[in-house]
Amino acid sequence: MTTAQKPVVTVLTAPGEPAPPGIEAIKARAVVRFACDEQTLRETLPGTDVMMVTDFRTDALEAAWPAADNLKWIHATSAGVDALMFPALIDSDVAVTNARGIFDRTIAEYVLCTILMFAKDFPGSIRLQMKREWKHRDTERAEGKQVLVVGAGSIGRQIARLVNAIGLHAHGIARTPRHDDPDFIAVHGNEELYEQLGHADYVVIAAPLTPQTEGLFDARAFAAMKPSARLINIGRGPIVKTEALIQALDAGEIAGAGLDVFEEEPLPADHPLWQRENVIMTAHMAGDFIGWNRALIDQFLENFDRWHKGEDLFNRVNKTLGYAGA
Amino acid sequence: MTTAQKPVVTVLTAPGEPAPPGIEAIKARAVVRFACDEQTLRETLPGTDVMMVTDFRTDALEAAWPAADNLKWIHATSAGVDALMFPALIDSDVAVTNARGIFDRTIAEYVLCTILMFAKDFPGSIRLQMKREWKHRDTERAEGKQVLVVGAGSIGRQIARLVNAIGLHAHGIARTPRHDDPDFIAVHGNEELYEQLGHADYVVIAAPLTPQTEGLFDARAFAAMKPSARLINIGRGPIVKTEALIQALDAGEIAGAGLDVFEEEPLPADHPLWQRENVIMTAHMAGDFIGWNRALIDQFLENFDRWHKGEDLFNRVNKTLGYAGA
Repeated sequence: MTTAQKPVVTVLTAPGEPAPPGIEAIKARAVVRFACDEQTLRETLPGTDVMMVTDFRTDALEAAWPAADNLKWIHATSAGVDALMFPALIDSDVAVTNARGIFDRTIAEYVLCTILMFAKDFPGSIRLQMKREWKHRDTERAEGKQVLVVGAGSIGRQIARLVNAIGLHAHGIARTPRHDDPDFIAVHGNEELYEQLGHADYVVIAAPLTPQTEGLFDARAFAAMKPSARLINIGRGPIVKTEALIQALDAGEIAGAGLDVFEEEPLPADHPLWQRENVIMTAHMAGDFIGWNRALIDQFLENFDRWHKGEDLFNRVNKTLGYAGA
Repeated sequence: MTTAQKPVVTVLTAPGEPAPPGIEAIKARAVVRFACDEQTLRETLPGTDVMMVTDFRTDALEAAWPAADNLKWIHATSAGVDALMFPALIDSDVAVTNARGIFDRTIAEYVLCTILMFAKDFPGSIRLQMKREWKHRDTERAEGKQVLVVGAGSIGRQIARLVNAIGLHAHGIARTPRHDDPDFIAVHGNEELYEQLGHADYVVIAAPLTPQTEGLFDARAFAAMKPSARLINIGRGPIVKTEALIQALDAGEIAGAGLDVFEEEPLPADHPLWQRENVIMTAHMAGDFIGWNRALIDQFLENFDRWHKGEDLFNRVNKTLGYAGA
């Protein structure tokens, strides 16, 4: 392959989002084009060999799909690939890879922090501090508490490792039940979800958004949880039915929620979740450590070099399941 | 010993503080008297065999000390015994024990939570939430960060275990340096404090308040810390010179502070610490888990039974050092 035959990589960002830092490293190995919506995609897709998608909410690719006349591989710089799982792409021969692994550790630290903040009532302490109010409370021990991780992929596994390491007990929910998993006390099958929800002090959603998980946390799921339990969602917003969550919080069916993802993002300023003192909220940032952009580019380049040499891609997404397997 | 010869236990609480829950269990084994200040102590001390002191800030005992005519043992229901280390008691034959062990795990969970909250900027997220503001930020990874635990007693050791368990690196400062400690990467001698302060991302004060530690964290100590470092104090307030801390925060010599203890408690509403966004504050409650009162009574009773049988007391305080050894 000569310089003239460099492959064409189209980078799809969100409208107004700057090019990822470190993109220069890709320019040394490929012709790089940029797109940010359906219109620019229709112009850049013809002749494109590889796509890097940084906008995990995009609907532009499905709209512009007929213009993809030479596409072999799409890499998503996110763990969730739900926005790419449209029928035409699923049915095509185009490979899809994701950023599996990059965010695991940081998300697990975020989840552990959220669990401990609930136990120690730190949200209450910060509110009291802002009011200059000295108010002693007795708070909970986290030790020995049961954590149910829904989704035992690489993120869920890292969460289990961290909480087990400090004496909590992590159980998992996944397609394949197993009792010999090194990171979970036990992994229970999907059909045991409602029973297991009744045992957990903390329920952590670490699942991909798929037709099977969309709306999974509804009134029935909350009714199955302990009144003292907290829900933590670092997966995808639409896995939780927000209205049902608010009703469960209002009714005391669960004790609190830690949310990094929402059905609607950014969450509108008039949304009723903001002012709830038993909800901890962040702006879809649980995994985004300082330097994550560069780490994503490095991961893409490693896979790009494999692809260029004709080797197997890693982090390949199973398009039937909608996520990357182990 | 007949029923008529039951030993006399005087319980010294803070003024207005209710009797500890579970105190009935002591009444079955001893004549129990209550005192809450110098005056009531002068009335109850004559004939008292054993004291249980629940007010860790008391100065009443020193004032009433001449009335202690038969005292053999004082148990403090706190880890810190600084309020008891007055000359007349130090010079006497009266044994002192403390609540070593009861608060270790909960305090360690509190410290780990504070570290993770600084890394993830959860105080900022809660303030943004209260303003209904969606604002994405990149935050820090905690993994690999260095934690310097000043004071390698049972609380410091538990802190080291927890932070090491999730991939941070705990070093200690103590009287006796050692490199074969099972819970610390290394324990450095007191004389290495200022050098070690320069390596730490988090400095945790888990030392007792003694003449050696009072005011230890002064301008010199803060100048030795990294500008990115945070101080966490779960020991005793007077170990930190508050004015020097505020100056160090203002000058950017350190990046933040997590404080459960203060030179003045309760901290007055007009104190400048309250409104600092890089300070996390709680009301001297880091160790106080739900059920701690009962756990303290159970611990006292275990030691009381030993004392009654003439056996050695556990958690005995070395009155020269001012804390209980291993």
